[in-house]
Amino acid sequence: MRTISGYKEIIADYIENLQINKKPDELYDPIKYILSLGGKQLRPVLTLFAAEIFGSDYQKAIHAASAIELFHNFSLIHDDIMDDAPLRRGHQTVHEKWNVNTGILSGDAMLILAYQYFENYEPVIFKELAKLFSKTALEVCEGQQMDINFEERNDVSIDEYITMIEYKTAVLVGAALQMGAIVAETSEDNKKRIYDFGRWLGIAFQLQDDYLDAFGDMATFGKKIGGDILENKKTYLYLMALIKGTKEEKERLLELFSVTDVPEEEKISIVKNIFENTKATVEIQQQIKDYTQRALEVLESLNIENTHKEELRTFALNLMDRKV
Amino acid sequence: MRTISGYKEIIADYIENLQINKKPDELYDPIKYILSLGGKQLRPVLTLFAAEIFGSDYQKAIHAASAIELFHNFSLIHDDIMDDAPLRRGHQTVHEKWNVNTGILSGDAMLILAYQYFENYEPVIFKELAKLFSKTALEVCEGQQMDINFEERNDVSIDEYITMIEYKTAVLVGAALQMGAIVAETSEDNKKRIYDFGRWLGIAFQLQDDYLDAFGDMATFGKKIGGDILENKKTYLYLMALIKGTKEEKERLLELFSVTDVPEEEKISIVKNIFENTKATVEIQQQIKDYTQRALEVLESLNIENTHKEELRTFALNLMDRKV
Repeated sequence: MRTISGYKEIIADYIENLQINKKPDELYDPIKYILSLGGKQLRPVLTLFAAEIFGSDYQKAIHAASAIELFHNFSLIHDDIMDDAPLRRGHQTVHEKWNVNTGILSGDAMLILAYQYFENYEPVIFKELAKLFSKTALEVCEGQQMDINFEERNDVSIDEYITMIEYKTAVLVGAALQMGAIVAETSEDNKKRIYDFGRWLGIAFQLQDDYLDAFGDMATFGKKIGGDILENKKTYLYLMALIKGTKEEKERLLELFSVTDVPEEEKISIVKNIFENTKATVEIQQQIKDYTQRALEVLESLNIENTHKEELRTFALNLMDRKV
Repeated sequence: MRTISGYKEIIADYIENLQINKKPDELYDPIKYILSLGGKQLRPVLTLFAAEIFGSDYQKAIHAASAIELFHNFSLIHDDIMDDAPLRRGHQTVHEKWNVNTGILSGDAMLILAYQYFENYEPVIFKELAKLFSKTALEVCEGQQMDINFEERNDVSIDEYITMIEYKTAVLVGAALQMGAIVAETSEDNKKRIYDFGRWLGIAFQLQDDYLDAFGDMATFGKKIGGDILENKKTYLYLMALIKGTKEEKERLLELFSVTDVPEEEKISIVKNIFENTKATVEIQQQIKDYTQRALEVLESLNIENTHKEELRTFALNLMDRKV
């Protein structure tokens, strides 16, 4: 059996060769474009790996893995429109390269295409997969809406923020793993636990993403550094800085997030200083460790081979230390 | 057994009482809003009726009917954004009442909700319904993309136009009927034929819609009359007027569809005159009759009771003469 990273190449190859050669081109070209940008393909890799650790063959899970990756990319296309983001994976976003209408419609088609990949499974498995997929997809929409709502609110708590990223990001990681478990027809207990493992890990992953958005390296991260700050996003770092900061730091931060006349680079630099001085950066690192730890505890309870546990443990720890 | 129109009240009641009471409100309120506007609910009515004519109980088909109506409304929300339409069913469109981002995200959620209604069926029926649904939904997206492409093209043929409305509108009518047939577990032959009946009828329906958009009565039609003309839409009337018109009429029409300085009411009035003088209006009425006739021929070949055939025949003929 391969290591987790060994599946990256398989799914990258598979996604690259998906036959999405339908007409009209104007609908399907943006789908091929965003898939061609690759990305981490973390979720489909997890689907394949999960299928194997529960005693199936990864090839049986490749359609479910494709569905997950298509859904993830659909959500990126629509989210990028809503966030008015210019770049994705270091390239133009779909609505920038084409236009908003194309982004809306190609995204819709991509969501439907995702469902179609489940048609490769027999009815009972098909239903279990599609049901998990719909539940998860709806939660992702709910998370995105919470994220939008937070923009207008000044009383977002850390707990609410964690719930938002759980829905927007983490449940899809849990679902990706559970789909592998479903395809492998493992026990209900294992299905539930692998989902929870992914969910905790997904929260840690998103917190790391928040951290990298401010403190990562553009060359490796692939997005403009400080994007969240310029968008006045109430990330964990921001919310924690407001809790831990002095009166002056808090006022400065609130002011910077409400005015529009501070030059971009200056704003990013000052806000990052506040994040560091208030130790919000230390807090987020601690939270990333804590959620990763929760994932590792669930992992222990799984009824799988120890070598597979070891592999998932290494994967989780690497994810926590990632720079991309 | 009820007449077709007898199901309208049932489905209207059912849709009105769908428990879409999830959070956050900002995501689900627009869904409740557009459903509260009612509309013809033609498609779900056909699903219920089809289930009964093939020997099932309409109640068994109510979830599939709901899925169809949710999908139809999802597509209206996203189409209205793309068309920048201010009104739908005589009320503000979702993106006007809220904003574009809300329209995108609530639409996405509505598409996913639609799939969830199929979860009420056992796996084999679930898979058959979801598969038909995905295929149809993708065709609707393809039709919408063709429609967008036509805006930029000056060489759209009548055949291409018919294909576009087949995908954008008619396949969903076919699918609505076929879903009733699937739930009733009738023969493959009946499933295929009722789909074709719906598809032909759907084309006639959309041509009638094109006609009413220019020549209907705003009070009954519920949309701004002449909307297609103001949007320079290459409808059947426009394409046929270009084919049948004199050199002068053709030039005038092309000019009106390329300049922006003609007052709205004047433009609508002149274009409608050209549609009438070129007999494009006569042609479209003939086409509506022809496609309705094709539907009636398929109807004859269905293996169902004569009273049901009669009911479907009356329905088809009424649709052809509708004013709303």
